Amino acid sequence: MIYLDNAATTAMYPQCLNDFRKYGVEEFFNPSAYYAQAGANARAVENARKNVLSALGAGEGSHLVFTASGSESDNIAMRCCLKKKKGRIIVGALEHAAVFNTAKALENEGYVLDVAECDRSGAVDVAKLLDMLDDDVVFVSIMHVCNETGAFNDVTAIAEEVKRRCPRCVFHSDGVQAFLKVPLSLAATKIDLYSVSAHKVHGPKGVGALYLAPTLNASTFVYGGGQESGVRSGTENVPGIAAFSTAVSIGKPLRKAKSDSFARHKRMLAEFLERYGDQVRVTTDVERSEGGIFHFSFGDVRGEVLVHSLERMGYLVGTGSACSSKKAQKRIPDALGLHGGFAEGAIRISLDGDESDEDIDGLCRAIDECRQTLQKYSRI
Amino acid sequence: MIYLDNAATTAMYPQCLNDFRKYGVEEFFNPSAYYAQAGANARAVENARKNVLSALGAGEGSHLVFTASGSESDNIAMRCCLKKKKGRIIVGALEHAAVFNTAKALENEGYVLDVAECDRSGAVDVAKLLDMLDDDVVFVSIMHVCNETGAFNDVTAIAEEVKRRCPRCVFHSDGVQAFLKVPLSLAATKIDLYSVSAHKVHGPKGVGALYLAPTLNASTFVYGGGQESGVRSGTENVPGIAAFSTAVSIGKPLRKAKSDSFARHKRMLAEFLERYGDQVRVTTDVERSEGGIFHFSFGDVRGEVLVHSLERMGYLVGTGSACSSKKAQKRIPDALGLHGGFAEGAIRISLDGDESDEDIDGLCRAIDECRQTLQKYSRI
Repeated sequence: MIYLDNAATTAMYPQCLNDFRKYGVEEFFNPSAYYAQAGANARAVENARKNVLSALGAGEGSHLVFTASGSESDNIAMRCCLKKKKGRIIVGALEHAAVFNTAKALENEGYVLDVAECDRSGAVDVAKLLDMLDDDVVFVSIMHVCNETGAFNDVTAIAEEVKRRCPRCVFHSDGVQAFLKVPLSLAATKIDLYSVSAHKVHGPKGVGALYLAPTLNASTFVYGGGQESGVRSGTENVPGIAAFSTAVSIGKPLRKAKSDSFARHKRMLAEFLERYGDQVRVTTDVERSEGGIFHFSFGDVRGEVLVHSLERMGYLVGTGSACSSKKAQKRIPDALGLHGGFAEGAIRISLDGDESDEDIDGLCRAIDECRQTLQKYSRI
Repeated sequence: MIYLDNAATTAMYPQCLNDFRKYGVEEFFNPSAYYAQAGANARAVENARKNVLSALGAGEGSHLVFTASGSESDNIAMRCCLKKKKGRIIVGALEHAAVFNTAKALENEGYVLDVAECDRSGAVDVAKLLDMLDDDVVFVSIMHVCNETGAFNDVTAIAEEVKRRCPRCVFHSDGVQAFLKVPLSLAATKIDLYSVSAHKVHGPKGVGALYLAPTLNASTFVYGGGQESGVRSGTENVPGIAAFSTAVSIGKPLRKAKSDSFARHKRMLAEFLERYGDQVRVTTDVERSEGGIFHFSFGDVRGEVLVHSLERMGYLVGTGSACSSKKAQKRIPDALGLHGGFAEGAIRISLDGDESDEDIDGLCRAIDECRQTLQKYSRI
């Protein structure tokens, strides 16, 4: 079985299990208690915070709030910085449902919502985005790497331009698919808020984080005992937070090697698919993408069916964001200009970076074989 | 080291580590994906849901939403059932900060907030509560077992009376300290919403749940891919949810034996403290409490100082809710009628149910010794 759905979730590094044993079973103390052991756990959380901030290239005075997911990070970013119920919000057309649906909810509460178009590879059209800006804009959210296609948005440059034109607006980027895959130095950017998720980088499920620039103060999302600077109360998930930090420490030095592997194998996939001519639409622009996501679509084979066929041949791939598969939705194919059969043919392969060339060759052969079989059946 | 702060958090059962290995490292798939392995994980989540619902004695048609903490469960219970910003909310004087501070926030948003008084043991004064009811009441929240004193509120009877007088109001109970400690059959009650937390019952940190009666529909708390019936989006924390279910399965059959142990050892503590006469105030009414919490206060020794002294003698105890220790607050001692030195002398011992009589004898000797030493120093 070769797992190629790493944008949906990743296998937790076995080393993270030590954190669950240590801080869950052995030194399981509540960081808020008064005894020394509790203080040690509070320090473990603060060390994890420093480690994640360091991996983000965060500067002096910035904060990190640990959350339960990338989705929650996105929700906190938008909801806890938008209180006045007045002004315009701009989000990218392909933003994750956590951003897009929060934006829709904010629209219902009084904000004007405008959607920034993307090109056929899923990258935001920056010129059009900048044309949309005016003094009414209070919040802009542009994802760093698109979770559907892997398209890279240069959010450092975009934030610079957005802030030049709208100095008082807040700029958020969903970095869930970019974290540990794209070099990042948030201290050197105008990005105010940045969301990450642990289980996308071989950390535990149920843990995320939100970076806040020094000038930013988020209001309360979960009320209670005041943990996480009052933003998100609840006993700290010490084992999960420590395991996230462990995953970051393991994953950070692997970035460059994985990046080279991603690029090589995405090129192999693109070259392989050339043989299908007009029958396939390759969405991912390999040269303008980051990370391991490769998205394409056959016009004559449904994505869901191809996923099941590939599964039988030992390859696990996705059809697009697992988070959006619950509801059939047209937003993503529409934004990518995928129509007719292509709208239903989407396949998302997401690499981990440790695949061999033989793995990718095998996948290509499997795709070809599955497609021939499926076409044969569709003719019967 | 004898750990007697189980109301703050508990040691995770080592068996739960298997769930983190299985669903985190080995079968780590995203339940929303299309392949068979993902479906198996979705079923693991549903099996955990059924198991927790069963332990709650929930009836046909009721729901359970997995959350990241008891605090989040409380927040969702209140925030996602209160949208009209009109009417009265009643909460108990000793409610956990997750309920109390959410109620305060809702008051700022337009609701009228009334606080139901408790007696000196921390139990809600039911007659006074019922007198507060009128047609304007839209939400009542009364905790099942008080996290400060262990006082038991008969929420089955209270919900019955509340609903008889205010049929359309929503009744919530924070069951974090009662779950698996008090026999419960939610199906046979008028309780609409019930909050629980995994790490208080030897499950993992970072996992909680909210029960919803069949008639209840909560609105969205975290927007995104629509997981957890749309209430709380984000990739399901399959390992944590499965580990919670494992802890419930282990803990459920132990309830009766632990309950007997709690009662016996709380009585031993109360009898021991009688020797201090007026110098001590025993808050917990052993006969009207449930679970392992025993709360008392010396008028002449600060709680925090006694905690540190006991720690040096090998006993870890608390001063009260760890969740509230971040902020010095007077709400709890005021509600309990603890004034002067007694307000600062609070000690919360919370048993696990597997302590021996010798453990409790040793604790009593340690308390006596620490107190003598501390009094000597305070005289110098």
